[in-house]
Amino acid sequence: MARFVAMRPRDIRFPTSRSLDGSDAMNPEPDYSAAYVVVATDADDGLEGHAFVFTTGRGNDIEVAAIRALEPWLLGREVEEVLGDLGSFARELTGDPQLRWLGPEKGVIHMACGAVINALWDLRAKREGKPLWKLLSDLTPEELVGLVDFTYLTDVLSPAEATALLRQAEPGRAEREALLRRDGYPAYTTTPGWLGYDDEKLARLAAEAVHDGYRLIKLKVGAALEDDVRRLSVARAAVGSEIEIAVDANQRWDVPDAITWLGKLAEFRPYWIEEPTSTDDVLGHARVREAVAPLRVATGEHVHNRVMFKQLLQAGAVDVVQIDACRVGGVGENIAILLLAAKFGVPVCPHAGGVGLCELVRHLSMFDYVAVSGSQDGRFIEYVDHLHEHFVDPAVVEAGRYVVPTMPGFSGEMLAASLDEHEYPGGPAWRT
Amino acid sequence: MARFVAMRPRDIRFPTSRSLDGSDAMNPEPDYSAAYVVVATDADDGLEGHAFVFTTGRGNDIEVAAIRALEPWLLGREVEEVLGDLGSFARELTGDPQLRWLGPEKGVIHMACGAVINALWDLRAKREGKPLWKLLSDLTPEELVGLVDFTYLTDVLSPAEATALLRQAEPGRAEREALLRRDGYPAYTTTPGWLGYDDEKLARLAAEAVHDGYRLIKLKVGAALEDDVRRLSVARAAVGSEIEIAVDANQRWDVPDAITWLGKLAEFRPYWIEEPTSTDDVLGHARVREAVAPLRVATGEHVHNRVMFKQLLQAGAVDVVQIDACRVGGVGENIAILLLAAKFGVPVCPHAGGVGLCELVRHLSMFDYVAVSGSQDGRFIEYVDHLHEHFVDPAVVEAGRYVVPTMPGFSGEMLAASLDEHEYPGGPAWRT
Repeated sequence: MARFVAMRPRDIRFPTSRSLDGSDAMNPEPDYSAAYVVVATDADDGLEGHAFVFTTGRGNDIEVAAIRALEPWLLGREVEEVLGDLGSFARELTGDPQLRWLGPEKGVIHMACGAVINALWDLRAKREGKPLWKLLSDLTPEELVGLVDFTYLTDVLSPAEATALLRQAEPGRAEREALLRRDGYPAYTTTPGWLGYDDEKLARLAAEAVHDGYRLIKLKVGAALEDDVRRLSVARAAVGSEIEIAVDANQRWDVPDAITWLGKLAEFRPYWIEEPTSTDDVLGHARVREAVAPLRVATGEHVHNRVMFKQLLQAGAVDVVQIDACRVGGVGENIAILLLAAKFGVPVCPHAGGVGLCELVRHLSMFDYVAVSGSQDGRFIEYVDHLHEHFVDPAVVEAGRYVVPTMPGFSGEMLAASLDEHEYPGGPAWRT
Repeated sequence: MARFVAMRPRDIRFPTSRSLDGSDAMNPEPDYSAAYVVVATDADDGLEGHAFVFTTGRGNDIEVAAIRALEPWLLGREVEEVLGDLGSFARELTGDPQLRWLGPEKGVIHMACGAVINALWDLRAKREGKPLWKLLSDLTPEELVGLVDFTYLTDVLSPAEATALLRQAEPGRAEREALLRRDGYPAYTTTPGWLGYDDEKLARLAAEAVHDGYRLIKLKVGAALEDDVRRLSVARAAVGSEIEIAVDANQRWDVPDAITWLGKLAEFRPYWIEEPTSTDDVLGHARVREAVAPLRVATGEHVHNRVMFKQLLQAGAVDVVQIDACRVGGVGENIAILLLAAKFGVPVCPHAGGVGLCELVRHLSMFDYVAVSGSQDGRFIEYVDHLHEHFVDPAVVEAGRYVVPTMPGFSGEMLAASLDEHEYPGGPAWRT
């Protein structure tokens, strides 16, 4: 009977602030980082589960401490028992009555739980020899519903309703899987739009994006109105009238400012406005959405759990749900959010970029397409062309579409050499 | 020019789970703990600032790590400059673009910011020779407004409106201060009502509470309906019909369950229902409140920042705002919440208990009475008779009312011997 024998957290950081890649109105100089975790067993297969919490630099050590604090829940447990019921394990971890005080179900502790749960999914997928999206897509509606913690959701979505939603999507699974393998999944790119780039670089990268087959690009806004107007003009001139341009304010505004500012950007017909204000502000998002319609409102990368997504949907506050693979409590909670979005008929366009987020979240969108929403309409996974070279199974985008990953696992595993190089503070990348 | 020279975090835990003090439906066996911090300067006065984050045991080390990560923001800074503009310092700390990713403004990192900010308030109050409530009550409306971060609040409360609210309360300050010094501030007690206590102990402690002068006691509910009905009968019999009994479900229910369950408890006329569901669920609280009226709905001890309180008030989701001294980003954010509550005319009844929460939060309620709401109507500070002996300036309740603290500072300082005894895991309290 194989057991879990080790959980190894590591502080991995990339010095991205040196190039201003990833700069936006709230994150002027991020060092993309990963509070990385490996779970190991004494099974003969030698397989390990890899995952991480994405952070932007300082504080990555706090996240590592939080992951380390979860060790006692896993060490010595039977591998088959834990992996065979990851819904129960996740509820146990996020529901621990003492650790719960530190959230509850939000911030550092919740993201740490998410990393451990995601590492277990990686291990399970490797053991079953399937990429995660395929593993999830092969589960029955009842098995999927068993992975979801419905606590605080039942006023809006019951297990029976969720099962019915999944049953409805069952007949088309095989056909959609075949289409997915052939055509991939739509991507959009934020590569051109970082605030730290000058107009020439913005125009060049925007034109390249169109040439590369993207139908949607995204620009960071919110630092200075005149700059936003100028940069949107530059981008629109570069991409032409057929390509959509989304804008992202990274929570820069109060509600009244958002409404005023977006009024000034309306002439550029943005595809969506992302994070117009605090992501905690459900009612604020609803008010912004009402004021700026038909401009779509998008949010989610900082939305800390399923209860907040439930309310964003209940309040009619969002047109686009942006899940993040590392913000909430792992795969199970993201399935809950996909189900909520499906119930409300709202498309899911995941947040990605950072380090490794593209690698992870493509699995969730592809599963959503095959087995939950059954649709790619109005759906795009974010893509940013950074740091993929550090991953064993890197995200690949061709002609503006994510290629289906086929390697077993959840794709969070970094190359051993990359991990050693970027270990903080002792690795070579940080000694210069 | 004095500078900050040290920030010393310590992991302090009390083995309260051995006696089931503090047991409720979500916290069966808490070990009340403090991620404690001391800030020291090289000033000749030798004064230090003390504060902490309250936790319930496991994970206290994560909070200690988070406090430690904030050290670079303070060390080497000029004392007068920082203490003279704590509003700016707080915004700097909670707005750090990299650390912000770990929240934003929620959970482990936000509570750590709160502890450091509270320690600075303790130091400032000691240097000015005043208890914190008095220091705050002596500030002008403009100075108080300068302590508040209005980011994400201006759709509901502008600095100008806040100033006007505070000006309105200015004329009565001296008179209310005199009344406060003479009569203290109303307390309620949770001492009788822990779930782990048997009926005999509940009845005895409830009768004692009445004898001690309390007009409101609180019972934990939510584990088993029959038990709640029986325990409420026992408590009602013990206290008679004149004394109010609040109930606290500690987020045990989904929205529909809360409504059903509370229907069964209505005959006991609870004074309020506290945390009927997830404290993230603003819309859920609003629905529960509508369904159970005239029963009051209370929440706040887990509400992670001013943006959430803003929405609870906007949505008409609460009758009672329960601030906590250690959950949000320190004194300044609690002033924001007091101002929001005052604007909506909703009474503030702080969460306390745990370890040290009574010591801290009395300052905030007393300041609210003198300089913000100007009222004690429908207002009570929670009191639990545990662990006060470890504090230099312990909370004192006489005849059901908190006595005004007069020692300079914010009262978070523990006795040196208590700190050494309960240091985790090496202290004598943990070696048995």
